[in-house]
Amino acid sequence: MSKSIKVFSPATVSNVTCGFDVLGFALEKPGDIIVARENASKGAHINQIIGSQNIPIDPLENVATVAANALLKHLGSGAGIEFTLYKNIKPGSGIGSSASSATAAVFATNQLLGTPIKNSFDLLPFAMAGEQIASGAFHADNVAPALLGGFVIVRSNDPLDVIQLGTPPDLYAVVIHPDLQIKTAESRKLLPKQVPLKDVVTQTGNLAGLVAGVLQHDYNLIGRSMKDVIVEPARETTIPGFKELKKAALNAGALGAGISGSGPSVFALCKGATSAQKVLDSMKSAYQNTHIQFDIYLSAINKRGTIEILD
Amino acid sequence: MSKSIKVFSPATVSNVTCGFDVLGFALEKPGDIIVARENASKGAHINQIIGSQNIPIDPLENVATVAANALLKHLGSGAGIEFTLYKNIKPGSGIGSSASSATAAVFATNQLLGTPIKNSFDLLPFAMAGEQIASGAFHADNVAPALLGGFVIVRSNDPLDVIQLGTPPDLYAVVIHPDLQIKTAESRKLLPKQVPLKDVVTQTGNLAGLVAGVLQHDYNLIGRSMKDVIVEPARETTIPGFKELKKAALNAGALGAGISGSGPSVFALCKGATSAQKVLDSMKSAYQNTHIQFDIYLSAINKRGTIEILD
Repeated sequence: MSKSIKVFSPATVSNVTCGFDVLGFALEKPGDIIVARENASKGAHINQIIGSQNIPIDPLENVATVAANALLKHLGSGAGIEFTLYKNIKPGSGIGSSASSATAAVFATNQLLGTPIKNSFDLLPFAMAGEQIASGAFHADNVAPALLGGFVIVRSNDPLDVIQLGTPPDLYAVVIHPDLQIKTAESRKLLPKQVPLKDVVTQTGNLAGLVAGVLQHDYNLIGRSMKDVIVEPARETTIPGFKELKKAALNAGALGAGISGSGPSVFALCKGATSAQKVLDSMKSAYQNTHIQFDIYLSAINKRGTIEILD
Repeated sequence: MSKSIKVFSPATVSNVTCGFDVLGFALEKPGDIIVARENASKGAHINQIIGSQNIPIDPLENVATVAANALLKHLGSGAGIEFTLYKNIKPGSGIGSSASSATAAVFATNQLLGTPIKNSFDLLPFAMAGEQIASGAFHADNVAPALLGGFVIVRSNDPLDVIQLGTPPDLYAVVIHPDLQIKTAESRKLLPKQVPLKDVVTQTGNLAGLVAGVLQHDYNLIGRSMKDVIVEPARETTIPGFKELKKAALNAGALGAGISGSGPSVFALCKGATSAQKVLDSMKSAYQNTHIQFDIYLSAINKRGTIEILD
């Protein structure tokens, strides 16, 4: 039997209120799993996708194969690899579905080849190349936390500059994914082209506070800083019930809440699992009034990022 | 002889490139010194100002007395206090001259009264009230680092939310003060009213990096993040020779450089005193070509803020 590697890569929340395009964090669950096997046919291919009908199998269109092939090309490798993809993150949910698959694929490929890339940090550009197929943009704000875990700053995409912040130990996230379609490209069109300077000052003050809160493990500061005066006001109308969800989260004791990525998922951050369970119950009960189907998750902040799973 | 207290309060650099209106840090030198003495005449008064001819003595116009009287009023105190102010920071230099005097005054007043305000953090609003007389704005970005030392985030001025970041141990600043007049109010008029969203993303990425760099003691990250795409381009023309100064600082090994406050002072941050001395020499030599008079300082980052001096 040929060699195989099984890899888990987590869902991620990007933007994180005031951190539009520059901040993200990883969840413990959900996450995609990829099994990569050596194969006689050169390049990366999809063998099977389990859990989703809507993902292209064509290696030129699938984020996992595009990412893996970018790595193989960089290495000058003629290896053949086939993937079985266990798709646990719904595409279009706003919690880094394509980033998870792309990251799992490059990580698995590197492992299968005997880790020619020694520092997994250096796998980022290949995962980004994969995710670009789905999102249209070459950005690291989902891929970097998916690969590295914890909170991550993307200071710059070009040249790539990614800073790991880790996470306060007792921080939990609640994420609700309403069954709605929001295209990232459409959601981008709602963004303001110009921002009043006073809003820039408010936003930068909050982002500085959020970064300090994460690094100083100051839960209260994290909560005070989770305010977005630029992007959330422009996008919140795309998610029916957003205001009610946010209110339900805050009333139940969440530190803060906002849109995950470009939506439709909405996330809240909480101090401790007990508080997070209360927030989950409150958001669930608020959203049941909308009659929109949803999934909801309670998760610690992921500290390890993408990992090999040893069965 | 009546009781007296001698207090030192440091000069400060606000804005700090990408941290417009939200970030500041304190210098070891220069700094104003105030000697406060009990006096029979109710309220705070100026006895003497040493080192500057251009500062009002009227208690309603002097930042030190306005700040001290705000504190006395808050405390319901009928005490009489007279100040001798050793004005070592030139007014209008852009390194927190009025903030230093105001902060020294409230700190000295609180000491003289037997520290009725136990946590010096709570002296901030009174120092801000004093500085407001000079700057026209109720903001903490010079006063907070002057009082507390190190780097400080002003997340919000109203309600006041100030976060202490400390400083990397080996960080030094070089500050050059060209003998030019720039009014803060005039300099504010040059600011853009609207900012393109892509510049907001660049600026927030850099500020997040700068805050992380300060907290993680990552000197290289501090340097990479010291970029201002919003305010510096609008203001740099107010300082003849700014581009040359910045280039001279970076060429000599500075981590980064920018405008201090609204100018005309220009600062550079450096790793280590030896590097800072090279940067000072380089900036000095670059500025001698302009035939504009200047002062130049090399200083460690101040860790203690405003302190009582025991002779």
